[in-house]
Amino acid sequence: MGNEKGLLIVYTGPGKGKTTCALGAAFRAVGQGLRVLMVQFIKGSWHYGELDAAKLLGDDKFEIRPMGRGFVKIGSAETDPEDIRLAEKCWEAGRAAIYSGNYDLVILDEINYTISYKMLDAEKVVEALKKRPEQVHVICTGRNAHALLVEEADLVTEMKEVKHPYTKGILAQRGIDY
Amino acid sequence: MGNEKGLLIVYTGPGKGKTTCALGAAFRAVGQGLRVLMVQFIKGSWHYGELDAAKLLGDDKFEIRPMGRGFVKIGSAETDPEDIRLAEKCWEAGRAAIYSGNYDLVILDEINYTISYKMLDAEKVVEALKKRPEQVHVICTGRNAHALLVEEADLVTEMKEVKHPYTKGILAQRGIDY
Repeated sequence: MGNEKGLLIVYTGPGKGKTTCALGAAFRAVGQGLRVLMVQFIKGSWHYGELDAAKLLGDDKFEIRPMGRGFVKIGSAETDPEDIRLAEKCWEAGRAAIYSGNYDLVILDEINYTISYKMLDAEKVVEALKKRPEQVHVICTGRNAHALLVEEADLVTEMKEVKHPYTKGILAQRGIDY
Repeated sequence: MGNEKGLLIVYTGPGKGKTTCALGAAFRAVGQGLRVLMVQFIKGSWHYGELDAAKLLGDDKFEIRPMGRGFVKIGSAETDPEDIRLAEKCWEAGRAAIYSGNYDLVILDEINYTISYKMLDAEKVVEALKKRPEQVHVICTGRNAHALLVEEADLVTEMKEVKHPYTKGILAQRGIDY
């Protein structure tokens, strides 16, 4: 990337396509010779297509680290300390990667979610992103992006759900949804 | 994909991320063993990262065909017959691929744009998509998705621009924007 300044990009909103968009950005970046890491703050129990596709590109080009665990139950009274511990662990991995000099683009997948559920402190995260090595691009995904993050970001796209297949009774599809 | 029914997906709206999202969907699909084609209805003069990344995955897995030419000038009084000819050619390539049995996912990148500029007939396109082999997934991208397409689609996500780097005076960045 030479001396270009890295961008801070946020994909948020209730619609589908936030992680998908980050995967597309990673794919494009790999094609331009950038080294990419995606830290997945939320991990599903299913099999992810992106993990196999990343292997096809080569681990030295696009590395995906599924960390954390599933989404918390809506309506949970309190944040589970174990979720906080895992969110901190993910953030530490992401932060270290951003500062390591080993990656040109670091994707913090679903970090917005963990911030909005108070598993991570927004101020701490934004402060570290602000001071990052200036050539590193960062993408943060997840619903309800924090106002501090939006303020600091260079690009924010909100995904709005116009129509969703589940409302038509179609289940999640392998290769498309995961 | 076995006997699963293919989805018709639309990424539209003024925000950035429509083509990027389609690339991410392609990437994920390749990881699940699907064969993917992207027909690019609009071609820029710059070098695309996705072309090189697709080569890394393998042409038998993800093929990208840059066709058409650049966006028309805003305010052009009439549609250039050459643009119509190219849009028809792209559509014919996409339609043939959808019906060929050679692809599980076909991405018609920026087809919405060509329809909204009357280079292609919406009714004709939607009719062909409706009658497609039922296991084939199709993704249509571009601003101003036609109402007929939205009506037929299983999933429609609208990308809304909350914040754009060009408004901050940052130019398009290699590896991120193209």
